[in-house]
Amino acid sequence: MIQLIGIPGMPEIGPGDDLAAQTLDALIAAGERLHAGDVVVFTSKVVSKAEGRLVMLESITPSSFAIEWAAQFGKDPRHVEVVLRETRRIVRMDHGVLVAETRHGFVCANAGVDASNARVDGELILLPEDSDASARRLRATLAHAAAFAPDALAVVISDTFGRPWRGGQTNIAIGAAGVPALLRYRGQSDPAGHTLRATSIAVIDEIAAAAELVMGKLDRVPVALVRGYDYPRFGPDEEDTGAAELVRQAGRDLFR
Amino acid sequence: MIQLIGIPGMPEIGPGDDLAAQTLDALIAAGERLHAGDVVVFTSKVVSKAEGRLVMLESITPSSFAIEWAAQFGKDPRHVEVVLRETRRIVRMDHGVLVAETRHGFVCANAGVDASNARVDGELILLPEDSDASARRLRATLAHAAAFAPDALAVVISDTFGRPWRGGQTNIAIGAAGVPALLRYRGQSDPAGHTLRATSIAVIDEIAAAAELVMGKLDRVPVALVRGYDYPRFGPDEEDTGAAELVRQAGRDLFR
Repeated sequence: MIQLIGIPGMPEIGPGDDLAAQTLDALIAAGERLHAGDVVVFTSKVVSKAEGRLVMLESITPSSFAIEWAAQFGKDPRHVEVVLRETRRIVRMDHGVLVAETRHGFVCANAGVDASNARVDGELILLPEDSDASARRLRATLAHAAAFAPDALAVVISDTFGRPWRGGQTNIAIGAAGVPALLRYRGQSDPAGHTLRATSIAVIDEIAAAAELVMGKLDRVPVALVRGYDYPRFGPDEEDTGAAELVRQAGRDLFR
Repeated sequence: MIQLIGIPGMPEIGPGDDLAAQTLDALIAAGERLHAGDVVVFTSKVVSKAEGRLVMLESITPSSFAIEWAAQFGKDPRHVEVVLRETRRIVRMDHGVLVAETRHGFVCANAGVDASNARVDGELILLPEDSDASARRLRATLAHAAAFAPDALAVVISDTFGRPWRGGQTNIAIGAAGVPALLRYRGQSDPAGHTLRATSIAVIDEIAAAAELVMGKLDRVPVALVRGYDYPRFGPDEEDTGAAELVRQAGRDLFR
């Protein structure tokens, strides 16, 4: 059995705050504690706030391209400018929505730039600079503070993405540490002995999706535990490739 | 807290089998029982088997188009023919993979036709004819057999889909009953009072993804419970639109 546990009572997080310490405090206040094997899931928002990945609109001078496009859809050109600065490639630009490939290689609306859940008016929240590195840092800090072995925990950083050909959005993983992005069944056999079709399950995305069920968007639950999931551990010679592995795999993507 | 509980010990299911009764038997054998509010998640495979959505390759005469394309990639033309018969529109056809829109409106590899986990060699498993109707039937039968009120349970039918711009596959919902496909936050405010960007979370996809973590591909765990998720209930005048709602929403999809 797997348990999904939202951690209530997290304080508002700002630049420089020790997110790992705040998480452990909130856990204790909730009468919980970390268990070895837990996957700790953070929303990208709370990670970005702790890392200071914040921009005030008033500090931005929009380009003429940003002004032009913003005017067509009644948007703030400074907001559009910030989106463009976070964009490596524009994938679609229509109906007032900008689907962008970020520098990380993620494809999402507005390059992940968002004003919701900002601390003050006029503040925009960007995605973490390197969300796999953020996950690795959080993992090391949490394991140390909990007096666990360095590899006793895993961390996933989640964000809310739309997807082509399907309505609604789901939480997916933009960062991971300690848990493989993909569980590969390729070449293995089902119970009846048939070789499975090429199948690699993006388990970190499923972990992020599961955690969203106890997080919600309106409540202040930016951290959740996935407990009891027996994910494969990395061997001593294996590289922890994080969520970037899913971007790499997408390069071979037939859907592109 | 939400619990994800895989139901072990399900027997091999075949056409005409009472999937709801077999599920309840396996639950009892595992020392479990249904709780009011449980979401019961079935893989599409086990639903298709119970509904007899099975085709033997030896019964298929391939078209010349199927023969032509199969020859290029060393595939069985009869298998390709079955895929084409389940296809409304071919979205991509390259590198030996056929991405198809099914009659339901789902976009997936091979129109959901698959040989893995088949009962015998040469058998292909198709998607359920109408997976929302299958979910509604299973929901009614389970609630009745468990002596619950008809609306005490929800059912989700899951399948494993790839997605554009991202590596790996995840489980998503192709059928649902009793739980809304989308949780809408549009126009609502975050704790600080900012209006959230247009956000509707495809919770049935997140439920399917969460359940996959206790199902796995190689083990015979085609049913799981998601327990403790406080999903919104339909009002007396609301229509249960099932997973088809996500197809409908995809019609307004900027990514298309």
